Amino acid sequence: MTQTTRIALLQHACSEDVSANIAKAHGMIRDAAKQGAQVVFTPELYTSQYFCQTEDPAKFDLAVTIPGKLTDSICELAKACQINLVASLFEKRAPGLYHNTSVCIDDTGTMLNRYRKMHIPDDPGFYEKFYFTPGDPRKSCPRKSEASEVHGSSEDLSNAGYQTTQLGDLNVGTLICWDQWYPEAARLTAMLGAQILQYPTAIGYWKGEPAQEGARQRDAWITMQRSHAIANGCFVAAINRIGTEGDITFWGSSFVADPGGQIIAQASEDQEEIIIVDIDLSLMETTRRMWPFFRDRRIDTFGDLQQRWLK
Amino acid sequence: MTQTTRIALLQHACSEDVSANIAKAHGMIRDAAKQGAQVVFTPELYTSQYFCQTEDPAKFDLAVTIPGKLTDSICELAKACQINLVASLFEKRAPGLYHNTSVCIDDTGTMLNRYRKMHIPDDPGFYEKFYFTPGDPRKSCPRKSEASEVHGSSEDLSNAGYQTTQLGDLNVGTLICWDQWYPEAARLTAMLGAQILQYPTAIGYWKGEPAQEGARQRDAWITMQRSHAIANGCFVAAINRIGTEGDITFWGSSFVADPGGQIIAQASEDQEEIIIVDIDLSLMETTRRMWPFFRDRRIDTFGDLQQRWLK
Repeated sequence: MTQTTRIALLQHACSEDVSANIAKAHGMIRDAAKQGAQVVFTPELYTSQYFCQTEDPAKFDLAVTIPGKLTDSICELAKACQINLVASLFEKRAPGLYHNTSVCIDDTGTMLNRYRKMHIPDDPGFYEKFYFTPGDPRKSCPRKSEASEVHGSSEDLSNAGYQTTQLGDLNVGTLICWDQWYPEAARLTAMLGAQILQYPTAIGYWKGEPAQEGARQRDAWITMQRSHAIANGCFVAAINRIGTEGDITFWGSSFVADPGGQIIAQASEDQEEIIIVDIDLSLMETTRRMWPFFRDRRIDTFGDLQQRWLK
Repeated sequence: MTQTTRIALLQHACSEDVSANIAKAHGMIRDAAKQGAQVVFTPELYTSQYFCQTEDPAKFDLAVTIPGKLTDSICELAKACQINLVASLFEKRAPGLYHNTSVCIDDTGTMLNRYRKMHIPDDPGFYEKFYFTPGDPRKSCPRKSEASEVHGSSEDLSNAGYQTTQLGDLNVGTLICWDQWYPEAARLTAMLGAQILQYPTAIGYWKGEPAQEGARQRDAWITMQRSHAIANGCFVAAINRIGTEGDITFWGSSFVADPGGQIIAQASEDQEEIIIVDIDLSLMETTRRMWPFFRDRRIDTFGDLQQRWLK
């Protein structure tokens, strides 16, 4: 018996005008709702250009408090459209303390949860360690009782570690961009019950690299995320921006992979698109019965994964 | 500066005649040595047909003690050809205690190490849990001093856990088949310093499944192992058999992926082949400098990987 849920991925460009970016993305969210999507995902840091190409203290002005005016307006939008969403934002947590954060908002306009990016890159053109403090570690192994405590007061929103959030019929595992290269992050989120791992992303061709290397990187980016779907028997959604900003041409190519690792929908490299996909959650059980990887994990041998290196 | 090492993968069929299988594979090893290979890898359980399609107590007679007559003959071959090799064998450890084991033998004919398959499958047509006890967990975090203790008396060969072995110029991480679906196993082996993760394998199309599903499985098998190369910035070699045995048609397709995840050599689905590949170990440093995933692992958040599930 199929259990179909309609999701939407927003792939768009970002200009220097934050208000215009928000207006465009929110218009796309309204469109996705009209097309029957139950849950919608934005690209990473969708309200602005990718400011991490330089280390500029003035760019911290782009950050917002959560909750705050911007999340209030997103909650209003979610309620008005009756749509669930995950929005990727630049969060000001305290003076001098900033995060790359996803917020989960349900179709009543309630902010249920937030996830703070755990793995922060720092490479030429992607100077994220200057801007983003990594997400806090979770204090202990979560239990079912905690899940229900996430809802409620703003204090409850400060929960740490890897996160899943029930949005409509879908249990969404929130991870962000550089997290996508870490099988550990995918596994831990899947073990929390995620039915889809979603990765808002800002990745593209850097002008300093040869075209062949860019093609390899794009292929590796797709392969790595497909592998998370396979290893964990769940859906994966990658949501990337398009357009050229400074030295980077973002490669779009947003996609959804099913629990067998097959790509069931993929956007172009250079067009703004709302990718609407009907995903059948019953495939998770089917796939995991056939290839029951969770059955056989040698958890008695995984302690050294907490080491940096073993030599 | 390139650091090129020539490796060879043996892709062959197996008949019901164990002596004939050994003679054929060992002939291929001689050929690989003549072609200048420094290290050669066999497919999984290369001396026999894949006997795990049924649960038959008589099949335990196929197992060998290690060291024993078979490994003595392989050591002689390695010395005579001056070639390093990893051979995948069915090991009798004690009465009623059997393993799926790889042995590492150097070009002086010395057996340096063994690895016992950690993750054991059990699916229709692949009843391995009946035959193979999973490999022992390592007792504690290994240190450099241990590595040199591996050589020597037969007691030293009983080392447990994930393994790497220096074979000529190449530090080889030994994993086996079902291990390939576990990013944890790949990571732990890479953290021991492996330059190549090698997976002897017996996988194919099962006649009970539709052709489309078989194609998906083969694609997932390739994708998953390429992802280990990407996540760990190292080479990966998958060595599979060919031919139809009972209900399974093994899909060959043995391949080598580079540290960027690109396939640099791949065999056919149905031909016996010696795949000779020159791998440039300097690519590991180049790749890891560009995408320094080991730099950013959030080891403070990975403790729960030792849990079965988090709900």
